[in-house]
Amino acid sequence: MIYLDYNATAPLMPEVFEAMRPFLTERWGNPSSSYSFGAKLKAEIEAARRDVAALINANSQEIIFTGSATESNNTALSSALLAAPEKRHIVTSLVEHQAVLNHVSFLERNGYSVTYLPVDSQGLIDMRLLEKSITKDTAVVSLMWANNETGVLFPVKEISAVCKSKGVLFHCDAVQAASKVQVDVKDIYVDYLSLSAHKLKGPKGIGGLFVRKGVYFSPYLNGGHQERGRRGGTENVAGIIGFGKAAEIAKKELSDYEKRVAPLRDMLEQGLLTIDNTELNGHPTYRLPNTSNITFHGVEAESLLLLLDKEGICASSGSACLSDSEEPSYVISAMKGGAEIKRQNIRFSLGTKTTYENIEYTISAVKNAVTMLRK
Amino acid sequence: MIYLDYNATAPLMPEVFEAMRPFLTERWGNPSSSYSFGAKLKAEIEAARRDVAALINANSQEIIFTGSATESNNTALSSALLAAPEKRHIVTSLVEHQAVLNHVSFLERNGYSVTYLPVDSQGLIDMRLLEKSITKDTAVVSLMWANNETGVLFPVKEISAVCKSKGVLFHCDAVQAASKVQVDVKDIYVDYLSLSAHKLKGPKGIGGLFVRKGVYFSPYLNGGHQERGRRGGTENVAGIIGFGKAAEIAKKELSDYEKRVAPLRDMLEQGLLTIDNTELNGHPTYRLPNTSNITFHGVEAESLLLLLDKEGICASSGSACLSDSEEPSYVISAMKGGAEIKRQNIRFSLGTKTTYENIEYTISAVKNAVTMLRK
Repeated sequence: MIYLDYNATAPLMPEVFEAMRPFLTERWGNPSSSYSFGAKLKAEIEAARRDVAALINANSQEIIFTGSATESNNTALSSALLAAPEKRHIVTSLVEHQAVLNHVSFLERNGYSVTYLPVDSQGLIDMRLLEKSITKDTAVVSLMWANNETGVLFPVKEISAVCKSKGVLFHCDAVQAASKVQVDVKDIYVDYLSLSAHKLKGPKGIGGLFVRKGVYFSPYLNGGHQERGRRGGTENVAGIIGFGKAAEIAKKELSDYEKRVAPLRDMLEQGLLTIDNTELNGHPTYRLPNTSNITFHGVEAESLLLLLDKEGICASSGSACLSDSEEPSYVISAMKGGAEIKRQNIRFSLGTKTTYENIEYTISAVKNAVTMLRK
Repeated sequence: MIYLDYNATAPLMPEVFEAMRPFLTERWGNPSSSYSFGAKLKAEIEAARRDVAALINANSQEIIFTGSATESNNTALSSALLAAPEKRHIVTSLVEHQAVLNHVSFLERNGYSVTYLPVDSQGLIDMRLLEKSITKDTAVVSLMWANNETGVLFPVKEISAVCKSKGVLFHCDAVQAASKVQVDVKDIYVDYLSLSAHKLKGPKGIGGLFVRKGVYFSPYLNGGHQERGRRGGTENVAGIIGFGKAAEIAKKELSDYEKRVAPLRDMLEQGLLTIDNTELNGHPTYRLPNTSNITFHGVEAESLLLLLDKEGICASSGSACLSDSEEPSYVISAMKGGAEIKRQNIRFSLGTKTTYENIEYTISAVKNAVTMLRK
């Protein structure tokens, strides 16, 4: 199997599984218990919290464990709106993940107004338009660090500066960025930032939300006193431990991540763009080092993926959260308009285990498949 | 270790861990992928859904996987309120779990009105009061199947009949009931019902929500198309598989659960009630077969638990979700008033692995500890 869908989910590392295992076998207690068998788990959770915090240079008290990045995104947005209930306006972009767009759309149906910033043909927003969009009624700006479909990096430092100068809360979905590029919340002022464990080779079912110290927070899951009253629900101990281990490894790997992954991505991209009638989606340089999104004009993505699957190659046509869809990707449509009826683009996303041979094989397989489908 | 805190969390069964393991090692794909490595996971998820559904005699399409029972409770309540936005009234009880009470309290601060039904000294509600509390403005009644602190069983069949006759939605938190008593949604008409995997010897971080076919539902976590558009977020595959396995085993064990557990609980209870100045909390018969909640007058629960912990006995003074608290339990206060300043009651909750020897040892240890503390 050649796995080129790291943006959908990354392989759970054996070290992560080994770290989780005791908490799925002997150490199954409830961390909120007063007896030592349960209570000792609290220290383990706090150690994991420090590892997750370290990945983004946060303080560990600024990290809340959630059940998914979707929950993190929903929580951050709802929290920001409760910070100033009189403000009823949200600014986001057309290319955010569904976990932002669908929550914002839910809020829009419930009395909030939303500005969806467009993107240019390379997937970037117009910073002047962002500035103009923020009004006295704006409660929060939600813009992603890196796009899940194209890998395009938004200028988060400039966005944060605009939000700060306008006195508006800034939520950033950094699910795809963390572990692939430096995400440093001391360098870049974000109020809320969402993370996912399974995108960085940790387990599914566990997410993180950074809430800057002093920033207003209201729980989205109301329940027990867990997470210092910020998120109800018995702690997913094994998941938290797995997230901590994955974050620890990701931090170590980050220094040469780009060096390892970008040359293979570039090789893949250059190889595929030699095919006639192909087109790169997304800015060529403001982009994650691992992601390449390419349109093969006249080729249905679903058919191409099927042929690649037969060759043992795992890739996707966009967000896994929408991959059942054969319609054009809303991200690509936002960039380039939607002339096509069916989706014609493929996302290849690489990881630290991708090899030179994987890429050679993939280029050849894609060439053959495209030729066959165009006949 | 003698574990008598099954209501806080139950030991994760080795069979459950073994069922989960492949999904934390080789089979780490994203179920929403189009390639077979990921897509094949969908069938596994659906098999687990059938097992969870079978435990409560539901149809599998009526089960939504969530990240916790807290999420299930929050989701059900918010969904019921969106079903009829003009209705602004909620009926619940004073002894619900925090995952209901704190969400209801959040809603109360945001424009809803709430009736909190009192309970009598045995922990039961007054059915006539329930009927009277339901008005034309009532959107939902949320009452639990079994109380987590005392094990008291609410008359859910009668409650459901009242709700049905009044045309009001009924949400039931069955987290403590499922696996301990028969929970049959074909026999008892509930609209929404919450479940937790880790209370039935499955993993933490995964919950379930039953939504009866045809009943209005609005997602609480807005994101991707997972769970047929009813709950965004990449599926926690290993957690779901573990929940399915735990539910399958719980269903098998249910037929003789009471026979196995109740005699030991009764033995413990009779033994402890021979101690001077003790009192049973909760109705003697309308109760889960595994739970015994006893007040030791004049003895601080925290001190007693500490001595028991030293003897290797794990018990609690109430909900684990609040166990840091030394204040009287709100459940016990609702039943008996709150004369004490500090908590004086202990919850013992047994399980299928509890032995006769465990109970003999516990009775003797509690007797010694109470004597020592009263000196």
